[in-house]
Amino acid sequence: MDRPPLLRLALLLPGIAIALRPSLRALGSLHLNSPASRPAVVLNYSVLYFQQKVDHFGFNNPKTFKQRYLISDKHWQRDGGSILFYTGNEGDIVWFCNNTGFMWDVAEELKAMLVFAEHRYYGESLPFGADSFKDSRHLNFLTSEQALADFAELIRHLKRTIPGAGDQPVIAIGGSYGGMLAAWFRMKYPHVVVGALAASAPIWQFEDLVPCNVFMKIVTADFRKSGPNCSESIRRSWDAINRLSKTGSGLWWLAQALHLCSPLTLDDVQHFKEWISETWVNLAMVDYPYESNFLQPLPAWPIKVVCQYLKNPNVSDSLLLQNIFQALNVYYNYSGQAKCLNISETATSRLGILGWSYQACTEMVMPFCANGVDDMFEPFLWNLKQFSDECFNQWGVRPRPSWITTLYGGRNISSHSNIIFSNGDLDPWSGGGVTKDISDTLVAITIPEGAHHLDLRANNAYDPASVLSARSLEVRHMKQWIRGFHDNARRRH
Amino acid sequence: MDRPPLLRLALLLPGIAIALRPSLRALGSLHLNSPASRPAVVLNYSVLYFQQKVDHFGFNNPKTFKQRYLISDKHWQRDGGSILFYTGNEGDIVWFCNNTGFMWDVAEELKAMLVFAEHRYYGESLPFGADSFKDSRHLNFLTSEQALADFAELIRHLKRTIPGAGDQPVIAIGGSYGGMLAAWFRMKYPHVVVGALAASAPIWQFEDLVPCNVFMKIVTADFRKSGPNCSESIRRSWDAINRLSKTGSGLWWLAQALHLCSPLTLDDVQHFKEWISETWVNLAMVDYPYESNFLQPLPAWPIKVVCQYLKNPNVSDSLLLQNIFQALNVYYNYSGQAKCLNISETATSRLGILGWSYQACTEMVMPFCANGVDDMFEPFLWNLKQFSDECFNQWGVRPRPSWITTLYGGRNISSHSNIIFSNGDLDPWSGGGVTKDISDTLVAITIPEGAHHLDLRANNAYDPASVLSARSLEVRHMKQWIRGFHDNARRRH
Repeated sequence: MDRPPLLRLALLLPGIAIALRPSLRALGSLHLNSPASRPAVVLNYSVLYFQQKVDHFGFNNPKTFKQRYLISDKHWQRDGGSILFYTGNEGDIVWFCNNTGFMWDVAEELKAMLVFAEHRYYGESLPFGADSFKDSRHLNFLTSEQALADFAELIRHLKRTIPGAGDQPVIAIGGSYGGMLAAWFRMKYPHVVVGALAASAPIWQFEDLVPCNVFMKIVTADFRKSGPNCSESIRRSWDAINRLSKTGSGLWWLAQALHLCSPLTLDDVQHFKEWISETWVNLAMVDYPYESNFLQPLPAWPIKVVCQYLKNPNVSDSLLLQNIFQALNVYYNYSGQAKCLNISETATSRLGILGWSYQACTEMVMPFCANGVDDMFEPFLWNLKQFSDECFNQWGVRPRPSWITTLYGGRNISSHSNIIFSNGDLDPWSGGGVTKDISDTLVAITIPEGAHHLDLRANNAYDPASVLSARSLEVRHMKQWIRGFHDNARRRH
Repeated sequence: MDRPPLLRLALLLPGIAIALRPSLRALGSLHLNSPASRPAVVLNYSVLYFQQKVDHFGFNNPKTFKQRYLISDKHWQRDGGSILFYTGNEGDIVWFCNNTGFMWDVAEELKAMLVFAEHRYYGESLPFGADSFKDSRHLNFLTSEQALADFAELIRHLKRTIPGAGDQPVIAIGGSYGGMLAAWFRMKYPHVVVGALAASAPIWQFEDLVPCNVFMKIVTADFRKSGPNCSESIRRSWDAINRLSKTGSGLWWLAQALHLCSPLTLDDVQHFKEWISETWVNLAMVDYPYESNFLQPLPAWPIKVVCQYLKNPNVSDSLLLQNIFQALNVYYNYSGQAKCLNISETATSRLGILGWSYQACTEMVMPFCANGVDDMFEPFLWNLKQFSDECFNQWGVRPRPSWITTLYGGRNISSHSNIIFSNGDLDPWSGGGVTKDISDTLVAITIPEGAHHLDLRANNAYDPASVLSARSLEVRHMKQWIRGFHDNARRRH
């Protein structure tokens, strides 16, 4: 774990840095740094381990490892019941379990057993223990295909060992990368899961399936509509920083004005701007309608709060940057406890970032760019060559950017069935998501007031109506899948 | 290639030997020893090579190899046309190309480009050249999943590089293991192929999906209905052999009476009986309605010819065995050129047997057994433990018998679409095949007078009506898939 994550390397390179970041960071960090959303509620589950093959796709390597999973059967009923299976993504499964209140909220209605399966190479499910991230040889088994095979083997095991579970329909549920896995799981293993809820799953954020700037455009739109001149203020801030950075005194002033923990040097400026960009990106993802405790404690609708400080773009560089500081301070210091802002403190220092940076360098190659016109960011291009070289330097592997679409079908997925793609309009990842119905059984649910998989979060008094109706539609589909399964089973007997 | 194939080892072990054999041999040998069915017709195709990753499912191994494939575009039309893609199985692709006359016969009607893709580790498509079968490390990439990924990558390549091919629907076609691959290809890559014709594909010959004796029962039924007392004569022959084998003079007599090339010892008796059993199995597979040139030149309806010598089971041991010799002689000496019968000459000494013996020891674990009551064979049990030990001795790997059903769904495949499963009632492999419709788009076609994938063979004047109507139904389905694809494409534009 002492290797610098790719992110750090990337930060030193203009252009691809941001391009790397949302893929490395947004998906990765999003899930890794937030304490439970419902600290007051105690969730009861059993922690179990299942012996998995390290390599499902070959026979030469007999090695196995322990995959962690959590089970709660409080509301499970053998008669007409179901199994909700969380397809774990890039982090500690306990954390996902605590942050997927939706499953806990619907367990009783669906008479459901809840299972949360940890993704290999994350949390405690490390195929080679402390050596898991040592080199590309040890990382060779960190792929989405291996993770899906783990899920299939685990479900087979549960169905064979838990009396009554064999006759139950299983529904895959996941958010973000976990949502991609849930959708892909239904596509590749439709005999294992009767359907999938893929929340905020950007399955089309690959190759040229969507424009590379769609992500940054959505971030920008969030700021644009959260306050007058808000996005324009941010757009102008980059040049202001560039002008101030030209002199030593300007750099000194910047560090003071933004209460940075360390002085700024010319070499840090790119990193500094990317740190700010990332803050806006993260805010867009967690722009939830109620107070939440994510990277930092945040107010309800945090972008609105941020934008209160960014009403006037037509001010001096120094005033603009002072306003930017106030805005950043909402994100980094809502608690009022921070003494200074630390630009080298990535929000991703916990488990998961190493694994995700490898995945982003192999299968999960998501092109990003910005043009500064349709978005509020400094322009940068998607440069695959440079990205590939970075990956090779970092991990000794090169990405195969077309593999995911070859394997999972890209936009051509209409022959599948029983997948719900839910997306929040506020969520920048919705740009790479499925937001229109593909067929009667491949349905898109959009949540106008939703940020990143708001629908998977626990019910909250401040939930907008749109997320409530999304959840209820999701439950209706799931009930239909469950009923269909039991009807078929009855017909067979 | 100088290691003894697992088959050889197996022959020395009672019980599992036969159990191994159909899987190793029948599928393997079937395709490997027959000259082209239409020697008079010259097929024009281009031989091409495509650089494939040795490991599609990991990023640590950058090695590539050349996959061979054949293309014929004589009848291909860009307007409303199609691509018929043969999913190569365990042998030289040129041989499959020459023996899949059906594709050549329908090319014009379907305005189709024909592509025959060689399966990795067979023919010229050897990932590690001469070292490919050296050990389990080199064999690690010989799996059905890697083969399917090869096919997907090859089709992507063809669609990108052949002008006009990008807009064409692709249909997978294969027989036997190749038929399994065609079906699985449609299941796992429905975005790549619009449908699949899986001829004589025993996708259910795994675990306990069908009774392990179904294969031998069908072989027996073929003999039972091909002549009075035919199967009964064979059933009684085993004890006759056992009795004769008890003395040195009996063994000497047997070798003389059956015109064996070498004398028989007590140690050879099991092998000798399995060689005879295998002959009956092979005859059942190639019981075609016209003269064909397979392992050996054979008459039309060869089992009928064989059974002419096996009309009377109630004779002395020596007369019964003399009759058995006449029957074997039909198979091994129809040409009249053989000087003696060689029981160590397996019908599978050409390419493919090594690769298939590895596949049978890893993924393709097909349980076989016989009870001597419902079939005409000496009883033997399916013994997984013994099988696994044999595999470990041979290849240093152990089979995972449940992996194929976990991966491909076993009997639970109803959520897929556009697959034709064709089976001949004479074919012992039909016992593990899909012989009833699963849905409107997963259809079974049975050919009462058909042996192993007769429908894939070229049109022949002696074809029974049932295979003609099977082929025409297959074409009708394929046309529907092609039309559906072009209609969808038009709707999108």
